[in-house]
Amino acid sequence: MAVPQRMTVVTLGAYSVASLRAFYRAIGWRENEGSDDGYTSFTLGTVRLALYPIDQLRNEASPGENVAVREAWNRVTLAVNVATRDEVDEGFAAAVEAGARPIQSPVEREWGGYSGYFADPEGHRWELVWAPFFTDFG
Amino acid sequence: MAVPQRMTVVTLGAYSVASLRAFYRAIGWRENEGSDDGYTSFTLGTVRLALYPIDQLRNEASPGENVAVREAWNRVTLAVNVATRDEVDEGFAAAVEAGARPIQSPVEREWGGYSGYFADPEGHRWELVWAPFFTDFG
Repeated sequence: MAVPQRMTVVTLGAYSVASLRAFYRAIGWRENEGSDDGYTSFTLGTVRLALYPIDQLRNEASPGENVAVREAWNRVTLAVNVATRDEVDEGFAAAVEAGARPIQSPVEREWGGYSGYFADPEGHRWELVWAPFFTDFG
Repeated sequence: MAVPQRMTVVTLGAYSVASLRAFYRAIGWRENEGSDDGYTSFTLGTVRLALYPIDQLRNEASPGENVAVREAWNRVTLAVNVATRDEVDEGFAAAVEAGARPIQSPVEREWGGYSGYFADPEGHRWELVWAPFFTDFG
């Protein structure tokens, strides 16, 4: 027996689905059909990014836990690899323009790439990254 | 300007890459080449799941923040959709056998699906889910 080697959905528990989906639309992403302020999703290759009210997600993922707003980083990063350094700079500027919080402006990485980090309005970290050995995004 | 609509990597900041990668191997997943106890990744369709030491990931994603071990749920869930109810049950049993903490055993969902939640050894939540309207995994 095994768990299929697959990831189909990444769900962010949202304090406000309405404002968070507005941010992702503002960076240029298109929602799937049927999206509303109770649930929305974006198709990203073979995975979907979903936004779901945090109290409802908590009831499934961590029943009984208090989910008061937490400011601490949540130990996870999500990455968008791109094909050129310029796309990193352009995407970073677009994200900040849309309301992202800049965490680290794009810099050369010692492993040979170029990347920066921003946080969405609820603190989820995204890395925009160019890596010379990873330019086939499926 | 826009951010490309794409998600290429989900990185979990790991307190122990060694023990966490052992868990993912134990559920049957194969690591990419070059994996070691400093960094490992698993290809999941068009996204990669990466495990990276939390202090190093913190330096990039949340510079200066204290990342003392936190037990609280991190507001994110990751999902593995499967093609049948039986696969949910079998995968759930395999995960628990490999050392996962059962959060909620598989149950019928009011929206028509069947799913359960488990936590990996560092608390990251996974939903194993059968949804009748989502059986094409790309």
